Amino acid sequence: MKIFKFFSIFLFLIAFSCVSSTKNSNFDKENQPKFAIAIHGGAGTILKSQMSDSLESAYKEVLSKAVREGHEILSKGGSALDAVVASINILEDSPLFNAGKGAVFTQDQTNELDASIMDGASLNAGAVAGVKHIKNPINLARSVMEKSPHVFMYGTGAEAFAKEQGFSMVDQDYFFTQSRFEHLMRVQDAENNASASSQDPAHLMNEKLAFYDPILKASKFGTVGCVALDKEGNLAAGTSTGGMTNKRFGRIGDAPIIGAGTYANNKSCAVSATGWGEYFIRGVVAHDISAMIEYGGFNLEKSTSAVIDKKIPELGGDGGVIAMDKYGNISMRFNTPGMYRAQIDTSGAMTVGIYKSDTLLTK
Amino acid sequence: MKIFKFFSIFLFLIAFSCVSSTKNSNFDKENQPKFAIAIHGGAGTILKSQMSDSLESAYKEVLSKAVREGHEILSKGGSALDAVVASINILEDSPLFNAGKGAVFTQDQTNELDASIMDGASLNAGAVAGVKHIKNPINLARSVMEKSPHVFMYGTGAEAFAKEQGFSMVDQDYFFTQSRFEHLMRVQDAENNASASSQDPAHLMNEKLAFYDPILKASKFGTVGCVALDKEGNLAAGTSTGGMTNKRFGRIGDAPIIGAGTYANNKSCAVSATGWGEYFIRGVVAHDISAMIEYGGFNLEKSTSAVIDKKIPELGGDGGVIAMDKYGNISMRFNTPGMYRAQIDTSGAMTVGIYKSDTLLTK
Repeated sequence: MKIFKFFSIFLFLIAFSCVSSTKNSNFDKENQPKFAIAIHGGAGTILKSQMSDSLESAYKEVLSKAVREGHEILSKGGSALDAVVASINILEDSPLFNAGKGAVFTQDQTNELDASIMDGASLNAGAVAGVKHIKNPINLARSVMEKSPHVFMYGTGAEAFAKEQGFSMVDQDYFFTQSRFEHLMRVQDAENNASASSQDPAHLMNEKLAFYDPILKASKFGTVGCVALDKEGNLAAGTSTGGMTNKRFGRIGDAPIIGAGTYANNKSCAVSATGWGEYFIRGVVAHDISAMIEYGGFNLEKSTSAVIDKKIPELGGDGGVIAMDKYGNISMRFNTPGMYRAQIDTSGAMTVGIYKSDTLLTK
Repeated sequence: MKIFKFFSIFLFLIAFSCVSSTKNSNFDKENQPKFAIAIHGGAGTILKSQMSDSLESAYKEVLSKAVREGHEILSKGGSALDAVVASINILEDSPLFNAGKGAVFTQDQTNELDASIMDGASLNAGAVAGVKHIKNPINLARSVMEKSPHVFMYGTGAEAFAKEQGFSMVDQDYFFTQSRFEHLMRVQDAENNASASSQDPAHLMNEKLAFYDPILKASKFGTVGCVALDKEGNLAAGTSTGGMTNKRFGRIGDAPIIGAGTYANNKSCAVSATGWGEYFIRGVVAHDISAMIEYGGFNLEKSTSAVIDKKIPELGGDGGVIAMDKYGNISMRFNTPGMYRAQIDTSGAMTVGIYKSDTLLTK
């Protein structure tokens, strides 16, 4: 009798472990392959008090459209890479976000764009920085990944490659938006006033002003990104940005840096970051989150929290990430008042959020 | 009596743990603070059969001079950052290495230089890429780190910053070496011949040729770097390179990428890489080695081996790293026939190596 009891417990344990392992595979309860997608449109000092209802609606509409577009691709069995590119294209084409159309201006009144993409299955990656005539930089990053032996190309060189690949070039005028241009004027006026009253180098003042002027500060963080898991169990991540208002010195931020702004690895997770680029490079943020999962046995939320709630603020930086693990779990983690974001999780439920109070920080 | 015995064991365990912890601190047996330094001058298809005795002596002489220079600074209580810069300067100034003077040529017959540096104490970092008129790019990377709010600057923008910082500009002629120029001619001839007989894009052929021509292949890997631990227990790492022969499309390799070519963190280790840049970016090599130590509990040798002997070859790449942990242990790990390298360990013993057979792979 005792042996029988023992045997029953044993069988129960085996059955339970089977259920657990099914739960952790890329199949949901009905044995359908899991898929999910999450996007961001930048983190920063985004406050409800500074936002009109109509602008808020406009942001939510584009975020919803972008996340649905990628999700539609995934639901039809498309790849995570295709979904990432399609979702980011919608954000790049919207003047609301600092990527593609709507990119901020450099000190020289030009628009310079950066993007990167990574395939979690092959660990292949592509990135471009400082391009001025590419409508959708994420598409060029993908071409660098798939059609060249290189990972990272810069400026006119990257554009020469784009031409060889049949990309059409757009004029700088394409990127012009009145609001971004006025923003540059404000930053430069503030910088000139600051320079006149101080011995601080202008570029340092620009950084300092950002602390006091929420609109200036928010401009640092306007980056878009996407992470996705497809039905094949492949993860991908992509990030696209117009960089920093009043940028000079050929500054490169974290968005085009594999490991900092973007990382994907089927073993662990996919990450796209949006933050104060310098701190995100120093923290090797996207790879650090992955490494904590791969080597430290952390789960997704613990990893994103360790980096965004602790490491980056301790360095003095801020921003956020979206991350997705190989099971389709999503983490939306930021230490700023807001982050434009949306997700459609493995159950098919869509949520869109802007402020910290919106329920999306932790699933 | 029993209690007494138990108490003795308890005391012994306490004493033992004290000894262990002393062993792991930055002090050696005589309670002197430990310090150490290691450098590399590139990994690749470096074969004794292709090297004259006089050339071998010349390499060893510069390597010895460079490692001694940094060690001298450390021994006087100087910082790891100062030692890294001083050692790299000697390698940059030598025409034997593909960094500074002696940099390889791009497709357009220019020399474009990249460098990065990281301070393990503060996790501050600086990097430049695509600069054409800076004699010692590692010095500019350090200025980016210390004198700007940025981490990474590119090309003419980086040079504008350099001018503001009082760097003198050198003509492109400064970087000319006959052997590197002839090397470019050979690569371009080979590429033209390949293009004439194949439909493959020329830039892909260049990559493929590198597999068959050891001299072409070796040219990919000419990068210099240094890691150091100072008496304060601070780690630093730096890397400097002339990039890839016949480079085009504004290609950026791993050398200026924090996390890929260079990483330092007092919690774990300092790393400088020299390899096929694209694979080292995809592997986020320098940070990966650090993360395995920090999160996975690996020791230095296990971490460098996991990356260089397994992960990178599995992706299809090759190259090497020098790494130093917070105790001053040194790892020189490469999967190529050779790596120019030298070290002075915590005991003060200097060793210089070139080929795999030289005893320096594993301490």
